Parts: sequence; C-alpha cells; structure tokens
Amino acid sequence: MAKKDLWAIGVDLGGTKIEVAWVDAGGTVHQRLRRPTNPERGPAAVKSGLIAAVRELWEDAGSSPAGVGVGVAGQIEPRQGIVRFSPNLGWRDEPFQADLHQALGIPIVVTNDVRAATWGEWLHGAGRGCADLVCLFVGTGIGGGVVSGGQVLSGCTNSAAELGHITVDINGPFCRCGNRGCLEALAGGWAIAQHAREAVQTNPAAGAYLLKMAGDEPESITAQIVAQAARSGDPLAVHLIEKMVQALITGAVSLVNAFNPCRFILGGGIIEGMPHIVERISQGVKQQALAIAAEPLQILPAQLHQDAGVVGAAALAIIAALKGKRES
Amino acid sequence: MAKKDLWAIGVDLGGTKIEVAWVDAGGTVHQRLRRPTNPERGPAAVKSGLIAAVRELWEDAGSSPAGVGVGVAGQIEPRQGIVRFSPNLGWRDEPFQADLHQALGIPIVVTNDVRAATWGEWLHGAGRGCADLVCLFVGTGIGGGVVSGGQVLSGCTNSAAELGHITVDINGPFCRCGNRGCLEALAGGWAIAQHAREAVQTNPAAGAYLLKMAGDEPESITAQIVAQAARSGDPLAVHLIEKMVQALITGAVSLVNAFNPCRFILGGGIIEGMPHIVERISQGVKQQALAIAAEPLQILPAQLHQDAGVVGAAALAIIAALKGKRES
Repeated sequence: MAKKDLWAIGVDLGGTKIEVAWVDAGGTVHQRLRRPTNPERGPAAVKSGLIAAVRELWEDAGSSPAGVGVGVAGQIEPRQGIVRFSPNLGWRDEPFQADLHQALGIPIVVTNDVRAATWGEWLHGAGRGCADLVCLFVGTGIGGGVVSGGQVLSGCTNSAAELGHITVDINGPFCRCGNRGCLEALAGGWAIAQHAREAVQTNPAAGAYLLKMAGDEPESITAQIVAQAARSGDPLAVHLIEKMVQALITGAVSLVNAFNPCRFILGGGIIEGMPHIVERISQGVKQQALAIAAEPLQILPAQLHQDAGVVGAAALAIIAALKGKRES
Repeated sequence: MAKKDLWAIGVDLGGTKIEVAWVDAGGTVHQRLRRPTNPERGPAAVKSGLIAAVRELWEDAGSSPAGVGVGVAGQIEPRQGIVRFSPNLGWRDEPFQADLHQALGIPIVVTNDVRAATWGEWLHGAGRGCADLVCLFVGTGIGGGVVSGGQVLSGCTNSAAELGHITVDINGPFCRCGNRGCLEALAGGWAIAQHAREAVQTNPAAGAYLLKMAGDEPESITAQIVAQAARSGDPLAVHLIEKMVQALITGAVSLVNAFNPCRFILGGGIIEGMPHIVERISQGVKQQALAIAAEPLQILPAQLHQDAGVVGAAALAIIAALKGKRES
C-alpha cells in the first residue's frame, strides 16, 4: 500500500471474537486478523488484545492508518465513544474511545456493530449510491440500520433502528426484550430454535427427523438444523421456516411503509444460510406494501457478508479523518 | 401586520374542505377562511376557489406573504409540486404548484397534508426544539410524520412515515390498503366503527346500547359513538376502545424502537376526543419499548389541533423564502 493512500483499520468487537481488518478507502480488505474476545478476562484485557492486533496490522501495512473504527456489540455513547451497555461483553459505561486513542495515538471512532455493518453495506456493498435504504440483519438476533435522505439514522439516544423489536404479532410469543410478538421473537435464530424445540416436545412424532439431526438432544436443535431439515423436506421444519418467512415479510412491509427506502438489504447468518428466501420476501413485500412504497423498491441480499462490520467501521474512520482534514 | 413582518399563507386542502390561514413566522394564525372543496367540480374549479381564498386573506393582511404553503391529502411529487394521486380529491398527476404560482406570482410549496401537520407540530407545537420526533395522527385513518436528526424524513418516493400501515397483528383484520393487521385496521376511526358494527350484528344483546345511540341503524355507528358509549360504561364499547388502545401501544412501541424519538406526539380526531388515552399509551410504551429508547422518551398530545396543517404549510413557505433569500 503506497504511503499516500488513505486507509484505516476496521474492528468488529463481539462477545466471542474480535475481527480486525486493514481496509482501504475503496472498501477493499487487504489483510485481517481474528482473535477470541475472552470477555471474562475483563475490559482491560479485551482492550489490550484489540490494541495488539491493531498494531500488528499497522506494522504489516507499512504506512499509518487514517484512524481506527470499531463496531461494538452494544449501546454506544457516540460523542465520547463510551460503551454504555454490552450484554455480550458484560460491560457497562466502559470508556473505550479514550483508552484506544491514548494507546494508539490516532483518531478512534466507536459505533454499534450493526450500525457499522449498515455503513459498510451503504458505502461499499449492496447500498452503494443509494440515499434511502434499510438494512435488516437476521442472525441469532435481528438488528438493522436505516439511511434516510443520505443520513444514517441515530435517534435520540443513538439506538435508532432496533428493527428486530418492531412488533409483528400483538398476540405473539415473548421476546428476549420482555415484549411480545417482536420480529426477532418470530424470525430470529434463537426463536426458530426455540419454536422447533417446543414443537418437538409437543409432538415427538412430527419432530422425529429434527430430533435425530440434533443427536436426540432437543437442546441441540439450532436454526441451522431447522434450515437443513427444511431443505430435506421435513414437514415440521418446512412449516417453521415458512412461518419465519411470513414474519420477515410482515416486518419488511412495516419497515417499507415506515421508511420508504429505495433499497431493502437482507443480511445476517440466517439469510446467508437460506439465500433463496430473499426472493420470497421480495415478492411478499411487493404484494403487501403500499404501492407507492413498493414500486421503486429493490430487495437485495447483503454483499459484504462477514466483512460488513469491519469495512463499515473503517469507512467511518476514513470519513472522520477526511472531515477533520477539511475542518482544520 | 407590519409590512416588514414575515408571514405566509398556509392551506390545508382536503376532500371536504379547504382551510386557508394567514400565519406569521412565529406560527400564530391571524385570520382564517374555510371553504367547501367540492372536488366533483373538477381540479380547475378547486384551484380557482383556493386561489380566490388566498387573495382574500392577502388583501386583508395589507402586505405581501412570503409565499403559500399547501398541504394536500394525497401523494406529492415534491420537486415540481404535482399531486400524483389523491383519492379524496379524485386527482391523478395534477399540476398544482405551477398553476398556483402562475395565478399568484409568489413562491408556492406543496406537500402532503400529514407532512404539513408534522412540520406544524415540530416547529410550533408539541415538538418545538426537538430534533427527533414521531407524530402519529389518529383520525378516520392513521397517518404520521417523522423528524430524525433534525430532518423530516421523506423517503425514496416522498411517502415515508405511512405509520398507519405498519403491521401490528400478522393475523389481524384486513385494512383498506389490502394488507392485513395494519395499525390503522385496528385503531383507525373507520376500523373502530366497522368492528362495532360487526359486534352489534354478531351479538345484538351486547350491542343494544351502541345500536340505540346510533338510532337503531348499525351503519350509523361511528368511532365517536363508540367513544361516547365507552365513557358511559357500555361494556362492548369499553372492550372496543381497550383493543384500540392496546393496538396503539403496540404500534407506538414499534415506532419508538425503530425511530428512537425523544418525543412521540399523538394527535388527530380520535385522540382529541379521548385525550386521557395519551397517558395510557405513554405508560404502555414505557413498559414495553426497549429501555434505551423508552428512558428519554416523552409521549405528548399534539398542541395545534386543527391548525397543525395550515401552520406547518405556512412554515414551509416561510422557510423556503428564507432559503431563497440566503441563496440569492
């Protein structure tokens, strides 16, 4: 990488692993490291590990990054870059930006991990060039991000676009958040696994195939196993996946009517594992959303896959550096 | 009004009536006219009537307005101010801004009527000084507007914030839009009236009080009659209003989690007729929304009542005039 080239380090900090990548201004990942987070060692050790990984990439690059962007699985106070609350890391009100800046001496930008992935898809993925988009990431949980009028929405306390917690069924099952009928409680990976376990216990005959795939351990049934069983034609699994698809269509219709995006981008592990459902969801939304919102809409799979978070976080650091330069 | 004072004419153009008001830059209405729309006379006659009413107010004011802002019940193409589709007026692709400008010779701004009311509440009503707010107007239908990061959201085809058409019940009753379980299909005035009529027909004994209030004509049951019967303690009416309140809480929770507003403003005829439900909705949302979104949130009644539309439309015209001055 030539010394004059603008690049940054993007970090995706989750409860299980830390992804660190060297990303250029065009969104290309040149090198990456993956380390276990081991949050049980405490915040200081997690930060030290992250800083060491950043330094390693920096040395390899041979020139200085514009900054470091970090997407953290948790609620972020954006001005001071404090992690207000991260259940995955077990952190509360943890200073983060300041500590990283002190150790590394370059600009640090901290954001939420799903927000970072939204930036990634917007600037370098399926949302390129689009001023109005909704990203929905369907994994174990469901998260999202919204760009409207060329601005990433942040909201009053930087928690806008908790799209897994829009209600799609007023009488629906309870969600991890305490409310009921959330999109996540019908279509998140944890919910699919839970519904499958309940169905297997209620009706062992219908659940025989799923149970066999899970080694006869109901607790070992995962959303991945349900998806695999559905591909094999197991009727219970097909029914469960069908309910998930209907919930995703319903949630997407709400979001399309509420935000009127030009593009609706579907990503996350569940979607990556069942890419054919993007077309199903697209057809359902086109039929059920208001005509004026449905007509211009494109529903697309995410393009950056696992890299969306590090690419988006790095892009934020590059933008911050460019703004800093412009203002000075 | 002194000649140097900045003021504008705000217009609220609905299918039944045209409201025209002389509004100053502080949002105060100085004078107003109300005329029947008579859309059956055709677009040219409606425009002529509107132009005549504007001229009448203009003459009374004794100085020139900065412009005319019009909120139209329909879908608006914002750049050219064309009414793309208005079911209430029976218009499709009707040039509007250009015709009004030709007749009046001053700047014309055209927007959707609910968007205009959102501007009114934001700049001069319950949303003053707030950069992140959601307005929900619950009348015969349900409409809304969203301000996020100090920008009124417009979306890809200027139809953002169709908040009556977020789904709250995946198995719910059909909506006028063709989808099912929309917030409007559970809590809009037309839906309450329809549910009441169905209940009266299904169970005439339980519906006796409602039927009596409607002069023994099921088709004469309105949401207003249901609200009045609920106040008198009629069990069926109380049940119907309770279901409406639960639907509004559920819809508001979705919107609070999706937009993370600092304020959530409730207006429209149904809310005005039952102002006590604002507090009920507030309590429900505080319990059910995500803590990070619920903590900073204020849920408030709209302040401008019937004037929100004309005040907001006039404010848009004043802002356009100020921007024009700054740019020239």
